[in-house]
Amino acid sequence: MVKNTYMRWRLPLICLLWEIAMIILFGVFVRFDPEADAHWKEEWHQKNFTSDIENDFYFRYPSFQDVHVMIFVGFGFLMTFLQRYGFGAVGFNFLLAAFGIQWALLMQGWFHSFENGKILIGVENLINADFCVGSVCIAFGAILGKTSPVQLLILTLFQVTLFAVNEYILISLLHVKDAGGSMTIHTFGAYFGLTVTRILYRPNLEQSKDKQGSVYHSDLFAMIGTLYLWMYWPSFNSAVSNHGDAQHRAAINTYCSLASCVLTTVAFSSLLQKKGKLDMVHIQNATLAGGVAVGTSAEMMLTPYGSLIVGFLCGIVSTAGFVYLMPFLESKLKIQDTCGIHNLHAMPGLIGGIVGAVTAAAATEEVYGKEGLISAFDFTGDYKDWTPTVQGGFQAAGIFVSLAMALAGGAIVGAILKLPFLGDPADENCFEDDVYWEVPEDEESGLYHMHDPTLKPVTS
Amino acid sequence: MVKNTYMRWRLPLICLLWEIAMIILFGVFVRFDPEADAHWKEEWHQKNFTSDIENDFYFRYPSFQDVHVMIFVGFGFLMTFLQRYGFGAVGFNFLLAAFGIQWALLMQGWFHSFENGKILIGVENLINADFCVGSVCIAFGAILGKTSPVQLLILTLFQVTLFAVNEYILISLLHVKDAGGSMTIHTFGAYFGLTVTRILYRPNLEQSKDKQGSVYHSDLFAMIGTLYLWMYWPSFNSAVSNHGDAQHRAAINTYCSLASCVLTTVAFSSLLQKKGKLDMVHIQNATLAGGVAVGTSAEMMLTPYGSLIVGFLCGIVSTAGFVYLMPFLESKLKIQDTCGIHNLHAMPGLIGGIVGAVTAAAATEEVYGKEGLISAFDFTGDYKDWTPTVQGGFQAAGIFVSLAMALAGGAIVGAILKLPFLGDPADENCFEDDVYWEVPEDEESGLYHMHDPTLKPVTS
Amino acid sequence: MVKNTYMRWRLPLICLLWEIAMIILFGVFVRFDPEADAHWKEEWHQKNFTSDIENDFYFRYPSFQDVHVMIFVGFGFLMTFLQRYGFGAVGFNFLLAAFGIQWALLMQGWFHSFENGKILIGVENLINADFCVGSVCIAFGAILGKTSPVQLLILTLFQVTLFAVNEYILISLLHVKDAGGSMTIHTFGAYFGLTVTRILYRPNLEQSKDKQGSVYHSDLFAMIGTLYLWMYWPSFNSAVSNHGDAQHRAAINTYCSLASCVLTTVAFSSLLQKKGKLDMVHIQNATLAGGVAVGTSAEMMLTPYGSLIVGFLCGIVSTAGFVYLMPFLESKLKIQDTCGIHNLHAMPGLIGGIVGAVTAAAATEEVYGKEGLISAFDFTGDYKDWTPTVQGGFQAAGIFVSLAMALAGGAIVGAILKLPFLGDPADENCFEDDVYWEVPEDEESGLYHMHDPTLKPVTS
Repeated sequence: MVKNTYMRWRLPLICLLWEIAMIILFGVFVRFDPEADAHWKEEWHQKNFTSDIENDFYFRYPSFQDVHVMIFVGFGFLMTFLQRYGFGAVGFNFLLAAFGIQWALLMQGWFHSFENGKILIGVENLINADFCVGSVCIAFGAILGKTSPVQLLILTLFQVTLFAVNEYILISLLHVKDAGGSMTIHTFGAYFGLTVTRILYRPNLEQSKDKQGSVYHSDLFAMIGTLYLWMYWPSFNSAVSNHGDAQHRAAINTYCSLASCVLTTVAFSSLLQKKGKLDMVHIQNATLAGGVAVGTSAEMMLTPYGSLIVGFLCGIVSTAGFVYLMPFLESKLKIQDTCGIHNLHAMPGLIGGIVGAVTAAAATEEVYGKEGLISAFDFTGDYKDWTPTVQGGFQAAGIFVSLAMALAGGAIVGAILKLPFLGDPADENCFEDDVYWEVPEDEESGLYHMHDPTLKPVTS
Repeated sequence: MVKNTYMRWRLPLICLLWEIAMIILFGVFVRFDPEADAHWKEEWHQKNFTSDIENDFYFRYPSFQDVHVMIFVGFGFLMTFLQRYGFGAVGFNFLLAAFGIQWALLMQGWFHSFENGKILIGVENLINADFCVGSVCIAFGAILGKTSPVQLLILTLFQVTLFAVNEYILISLLHVKDAGGSMTIHTFGAYFGLTVTRILYRPNLEQSKDKQGSVYHSDLFAMIGTLYLWMYWPSFNSAVSNHGDAQHRAAINTYCSLASCVLTTVAFSSLLQKKGKLDMVHIQNATLAGGVAVGTSAEMMLTPYGSLIVGFLCGIVSTAGFVYLMPFLESKLKIQDTCGIHNLHAMPGLIGGIVGAVTAAAATEEVYGKEGLISAFDFTGDYKDWTPTVQGGFQAAGIFVSLAMALAGGAIVGAILKLPFLGDPADENCFEDDVYWEVPEDEESGLYHMHDPTLKPVTS
Repeated sequence: MVKNTYMRWRLPLICLLWEIAMIILFGVFVRFDPEADAHWKEEWHQKNFTSDIENDFYFRYPSFQDVHVMIFVGFGFLMTFLQRYGFGAVGFNFLLAAFGIQWALLMQGWFHSFENGKILIGVENLINADFCVGSVCIAFGAILGKTSPVQLLILTLFQVTLFAVNEYILISLLHVKDAGGSMTIHTFGAYFGLTVTRILYRPNLEQSKDKQGSVYHSDLFAMIGTLYLWMYWPSFNSAVSNHGDAQHRAAINTYCSLASCVLTTVAFSSLLQKKGKLDMVHIQNATLAGGVAVGTSAEMMLTPYGSLIVGFLCGIVSTAGFVYLMPFLESKLKIQDTCGIHNLHAMPGLIGGIVGAVTAAAATEEVYGKEGLISAFDFTGDYKDWTPTVQGGFQAAGIFVSLAMALAGGAIVGAILKLPFLGDPADENCFEDDVYWEVPEDEESGLYHMHDPTLKPVTS
C-alpha cells in the first residue's frame, strides 16, 4: 500500500488558515488583563496596592517559565528517545504546542476570563494555556511516529476544545479542585490519546519495529526531557494555586512525591528484569509518575509523608505497567502506545484523582484552620455550606467525567483522523523522520540502516 | 596558502592582559548599587520600603537568569548545528560572552550608572550586560567557523564599545524606547556582523563546504538552543521594562508573537520546498523571528492580536530569507552568513524597529490612560511636552542611527580583523574544531571524514 | 577475578527498605513550616504581613529551582563526558540525589528546624537539602564509573549524615557564615570523595583506560552540565542569604568571579599545552572554579573587583591542577579522581574558605554600615560582642573542621564500601554502562568497540 505523505499544500494551508483565524479571533476577543494593561497604575489605588510587586506577574511568572520549559523542552526531548524520530518528536511537539496555546487562550478565555465581550489575559492565562497543551503533548506520546503533522494539528484543535469543556465542567460546574491537573490534564489527556491510538490501530506495525527502539545518544537526549519535567514539576503543580501558603505547600508536596518515586522506580526496574539491570525507559518515565499523582492534592494538606507514600506507590505501578501491562494492551486491546503514556499519565492520573478526593474529604478545620479551610477549597458564595465530604464526592465525580470525556472525545477525534487525505505514513515508514523532514545525509545516520555484516560491532 | 593558527602565546596573552585590565578598571570604578550594598537597610527607611521584597532583585532576577540562559545555552547551542564545530560554537560563545559582560558592565556603566566617579551595579546592569553581549553573539553567528578566538575577542572588545555608544545615543540622546532591543541588539548586532563577514570574504570557502552542513545529532543539539531562546524570549523582552504592568504586558506580547511565528515558519518551510518536507534550519531559526520583531514594541500596548500579526509576517519573511535571499547575498554581495543572521536578526530587527515606531506614534491617552502614557514613554522632565507622534519619529531615527553605526563600525572592525597575525584558519579548515581544540579521536568523529565506498549507507 | 555485579535483589531491597524508612521518619517527624501550612493566613496578622508576597516562597523559590537544575542537570550532565557511561552519570546521579534530599531534609531538620518534636520544612529546607546532596554529587565525581549503585546509596547515606554534623558544627557551634558552601559543600564534599577513592584504589585500572576518554558528542552533553552550573551559580551562592541586599550582592559577586575565571581558564588551557589547543576538560570544569571560590564570601562586601581577582586566580589554579597535579595524585598518592574534583572543588573550596575568612576579618562598620554589619554577620544575641576579627578566626577554624571531617569520614566510609558484597565492577568493566544498564545494541555504540582496521578514519 502506497501512502501519500506529500505535505506541500496541505500543511501550509492548514497552518496559514488557522493562524489567520487566530488573528481574527484575537482581534475580536482578546485584550490585556487589567494587571497587564497600561491603565493598571490607575486601578492600583482602588485595589489598595502598596507596591508594583503585588502584580500577579511576580507571583506567577517564574512558575510560568518552568511550566513553559516542561511543555517545550520537557515533553519535546522526552520523546526523542526514538533513534530516528528526534526531529519529529521535538519539532512536531513545538508545532502543536505553539498552535495549541493560542487556541487554548481563546477556549479557556471564553469559559473563564470573559468580561464585557472580551477575554482578558494575564500570566495565569498563559500558564493555563500551557497546561491545556500539556494534555495534547501527552496524547501525542501515544501516537508518536505514526501520524502526519496535519493530523496532529487537527488533533490539537479538537483536544484543546474538549479539554476546555471538560475543565469548565469540573472547575466551574462541579467546583472541583485540580490545580496540578491529575484529572483535567493527565487522566483526560492520556485516555484521550489511548483511545485515539486504539482507533488508529495498525496491525502491521511490526514492519517498523527496528526503528521503535532507542540508540545510546537518543536515550541521553530523552534524559534532558525527563530531568526538566522532574525538576520543574513542583512549579507545575503550584503554578495556579492560591498565592502564599498554597503555592508553597504544593511545591513541597510535589518535591517529596517525586523524590520517593525515583527510588521505587529504580527498585522495580531492576527487580522485574531477570538480569537485574536498569531499563532507561523506566528511568525516563516512571520517575515522573509521582508528580502526576499529586497533581490534585499537592496544594492540599497532603503532608510530606503522605506525598512520599503516593510517590512510592506510583513508581511501582508505573514501572510494573511498562513491564506487564503495555505488552498486554498492545496484543489484546490493540492499543499501540509509543511512549507508554498509560504508565506515566493514565494510571498515575487516576490515582491522583482518587488521592485528591480522599484528601479533600478528609480535610478538617483542625488541620487547615477555619480561614484556611475556606480558602483552600473556596467554600464561599454558593459553596459556603459545603463540607469536605461533599467536596470529596464532587472530586470523585470529576474523575468519571474526565474519563468519559476522554473516551468519547478520543473515539470521535480518532475517527476524524482516519480520513484518508491527512497524509499519515505507511506502516514501514513509521518512526522515521525522513517522511516529513529533510534529514542530513550523514554517514552516521546512514549507519543506522546498515546491515553489512563486515560492519558488525566486535564484542569487547 | 599555509596559515599559522598556533594560539599558544597569542590567546593566553590577550586573555590575561585583558582580564587584568578588567580587574584594574573594576577596582577603580565599579561598586555595588545601593540595593546590593550592605548599607541598604539604612536607605530603606528613606525610600519608604515596607519589605525586603521591594529590592529590585526580586523584580528582575528571575528574568535575568532566563536571559543568562539565552546568551550561554541559547546562542551557544543554536550554533552547534555544524557537524564538526560544536566545541567552537559553545566554547567560543562562552569565552566571548564571559569577557563581553565584564567590558559591557564598564562601558554601559560609564554611560548610564555613573555617580560620583563610580559605576554602581545591580541586577539591571547584569541584564543589560547580557543584552549587549547578545549582540556580539549575533554577529558571531555570521562569522561562525571562520575566525580564531583571538579575532573573536577583538571583535567583542570593539563591538561592545560601539554597542554602548549606539545605545547611549538612542536611549539617552534620542529618548528612544527599546526594552527588548530590536534596534540596539538585533539590528545593530546583525548588520555589524554582516559587514564584518563581508570584509572577511573568503572566495574559496567552498573548500570546506562538506563541513558546513549538519548531522542528525548536531541538529538536535541545536534545537536545545532554539527552544531555550524561544521559551525565554518573553523574559528577554520584559527584563528591563518598568515594574508592574509593563513587564507583564511585554511578556504576553512576546509569547503571542512567538507562537504565531512558529505556524508560518512551518507553513513556508514546507511550501518553499519541492518535496514539501520541513527544513530543520528554518525551524531552528525562523521560529524565533517573532521575538526579535516585538523587541521594541512588546512593552507598549501592541495588544495580543497585534503581536500575532507581527509574528505571522516575520515567520514568512525569515523563512523566505533563508530560501531566496541567503544564496543571493552570498553569490552577489559576497556576504557569507554561516547561521543566517540576516534572516533571524537583521530583517526582523528592522521590522521590530518599524513596528515600535508605529506603535509609539499611534499611542493615545485613551488606550494607555493619562498616567499610563506618561509612564510608558517616560514623558517627564525634559520630555513632558512630547507627543506620541514625536516619539514615533525619534523611534524611526533610532533605526537609522543603529544601521549607520553597524555598517561603519563593522567596516572598521572587519578591517582590523584582517590583520595577518590573528590566527584565522585556512579556507579548507573552516568549520572544523580541531584547528583550535583537542578533539577526541573517536571512531565516530573519524567516520565523518570517511569516504570509503564500502561504508556507504545501504538505503533502507 | 570475576566480580558479581548482579543487582537484582540487592538494589531493589536497599531502595525499598530505605524509602519505607523515609516514609516512617517523615510520618513521625516532618510537618510543614508555618509559611507552607494552611494556618498561615491566621499567623499573618501577627507577623504584620501586608501581602502574600512576603511569604518566603517568593524570596527563594526561583533560586531553589536554579539550584535544583544544577544538582540534577548540572552535575548529572557534567559527568556524561565519558564515552560509555552516560546512563550511569545521569542516572545514578538522579538516584543518589533523589534519596539524598530526603535524608538531608531529616538530618538537617533535626539540627536546624526542630520545634516541639517536629521538623518544619519550607522552601529554604529544600534548598539546603539540595546543597547537602550537592556535596555527594561532588564526591560521586571522584569515583564515577568505578562503583555500583548500591555502593553509591550507602555513600549517600553516610555522607549526608556527616555533612549535616559538619554543617551543624560550623554554622551553629562556630557561628561560621558559609551561604554558598565553599567549606561545607565543596571542601567537605571533595576531600571526602578523594579519600573514598583513595581507599578504593584500583591498581589495574588501566585495563579500562580506553573508556576513560570522551567522544565528540559526549563532550557536548557535558557542556550542557557545565553551562547550567555556570549560569545558575549566582543563584546557588545567593539562595539562602539574607533577604534583600545580601541575596542581591551574592549574585553579583558570583557573576563577576565566574566571568573572570573563564578567561584565565582559556588562557592556561592553551598555554600549558604544546600545541596551544584548548582542552574541553578544562573548559568543562575549571571555568566553574570561580563560583566555588566565592561560596563563602559572595554575600559579604567582597566587591566586584575582589570577585574578579578570586575568579582570575582560581581559573589558573584549577587548570594547572588538571595538567600537573592530577597525574601526580594518581601516580604518587594513588588517588584516581575520574572527574578531577580536586581541581574543581577541593582547591577552589579551600581558597573559598580562606577568602571568606579574610573578607570577614576585614569587615568594617564603614563598609557595611552599623546595621549592615550586624545583619551580615548576625552579631546578635550571644554574638553581639563579636568583632569581624573574631569572626574571621572562626571562619578559618571552619576550614580545618571541614577538612578533618572529610578525611576521617571518607576513610571510614571508604572502608565500608570495600565490603565484598556490594557489587562493584571489575577493573576491565569500569566506565562501562552495560554492567548495570540495559544498553541499546545500536550499531553506533557497537562502533566504539570496533578495532577493525578497515574502518579506520580516513584523514581528511
